[in-house]
Amino acid sequence: MIQKECKYWIPGHSIDCVVLGFENNILKVLLLKMRHSEKWSLPGGFIKKKEDLDAAALRALSDRTGLKSIYLSQFHTFGAYERRGKSEVDRLMHEIGQLNKTVAQWLSNRFLTTGYFAFADVQKARPVPDFISEKAEWVAIDELPTLIFDHLEIINKALQHIKLKLNYLPIGDALLPPKFTMAMLQKLYETILGRALDRANFQKKMLKLGIFDRLEKLKTGAANKAPYLYSFHRKKYERVLKEGIGYL
Amino acid sequence: MIQKECKYWIPGHSIDCVVLGFENNILKVLLLKMRHSEKWSLPGGFIKKKEDLDAAALRALSDRTGLKSIYLSQFHTFGAYERRGKSEVDRLMHEIGQLNKTVAQWLSNRFLTTGYFAFADVQKARPVPDFISEKAEWVAIDELPTLIFDHLEIINKALQHIKLKLNYLPIGDALLPPKFTMAMLQKLYETILGRALDRANFQKKMLKLGIFDRLEKLKTGAANKAPYLYSFHRKKYERVLKEGIGYL
Repeated sequence: MIQKECKYWIPGHSIDCVVLGFENNILKVLLLKMRHSEKWSLPGGFIKKKEDLDAAALRALSDRTGLKSIYLSQFHTFGAYERRGKSEVDRLMHEIGQLNKTVAQWLSNRFLTTGYFAFADVQKARPVPDFISEKAEWVAIDELPTLIFDHLEIINKALQHIKLKLNYLPIGDALLPPKFTMAMLQKLYETILGRALDRANFQKKMLKLGIFDRLEKLKTGAANKAPYLYSFHRKKYERVLKEGIGYL
Repeated sequence: MIQKECKYWIPGHSIDCVVLGFENNILKVLLLKMRHSEKWSLPGGFIKKKEDLDAAALRALSDRTGLKSIYLSQFHTFGAYERRGKSEVDRLMHEIGQLNKTVAQWLSNRFLTTGYFAFADVQKARPVPDFISEKAEWVAIDELPTLIFDHLEIINKALQHIKLKLNYLPIGDALLPPKFTMAMLQKLYETILGRALDRANFQKKMLKLGIFDRLEKLKTGAANKAPYLYSFHRKKYERVLKEGIGYL
């Protein structure tokens, strides 16, 4: 099937998706374990000849996670001439060549790749490996295995991009459960930023954004100390997502 | 010459540069006027088979502006299937076909394009048209002529990107003269944001960034009311450019 599809794709351009999830206070990325190799890769795909780039990214992501509607955002196109490394391409094409020579030939050309990132609910995603991988798994961002090509650079660029985004866009949707405490939100920010934040200051600035609905208190033993639960106010969240949080 | 070069480029991928300048308090973009057409286009180029994408963008920009060292930043890759519009491609290829059939054939395929933006000193740039254009000019962003393909969308996306960037990155280098007043900096921000800003608040927030050197006063008639001149402190400017202006 993949051989036939080859000729329906535009040559030389691929897509790679950095799908992030947040589980037990750990930031995780969705990775595929290559067949016949100890290396892992990002889920990705190719673009059909009459398909929009964004549509191809959504399709690739849906194929690999089972998630149909997801906020997917393009962040960078990687176009270094030797981004895939000749010896690594040769070795991979040798493996793939045993499965299918046409595909191996097609893949051995130079590829630029456009990176997209998405936040996904780890509980809802159903990771599915592609034809050159044997399994798909959520892996903690602090415990990444060896990755093929420039995929480590792609992940790092995505994280750097998201860190900057935290300065002007809200975050949390899909990464947090529908109801969450400010402490949970703060933990998410701290995990992405890689540094501790002042609790009072964080709450003040967050609540000032006006993107939350305050709900009931979290049920704990000590009722008077129980923190409030919040949810995102969909419309307000989306407006801030569009306009940005100005510091001016 | 262009015919020979064709086979040295990777097919299906181009580069478009949104080069912005600021002159007489007007934001301007560098455009090329097409030959045999009333339409204008962004300066752009193609990628040599063994050339990095970023290097190709720098080369294209240098060829069109004479500027050798410039801060060029990738912001988006445009990959809609019909981004160039069939009838427009047909017409353009007809014109180019009269100059060179090989090039016309090569250009008639589907192209994805990666957008880069840069800020340039209008006084220093020496706009040079390419082989399919008859002149290169700085055009006020509020008075754009009709553009080919999706170039208007590319400019709008760049502006939207830069507006968001103002929320977390400093701006002004290359757009302002080496010595400037806070009023000049504010005018630049207001022009890009498309809205007025409070003077006192703006100055307070800007100075808090710690990226300026305060110089002598601007020479005016009324000495006691003369505003201070500032310049960017190179190292501090670059550090904030790298780390971002956090609101947290």
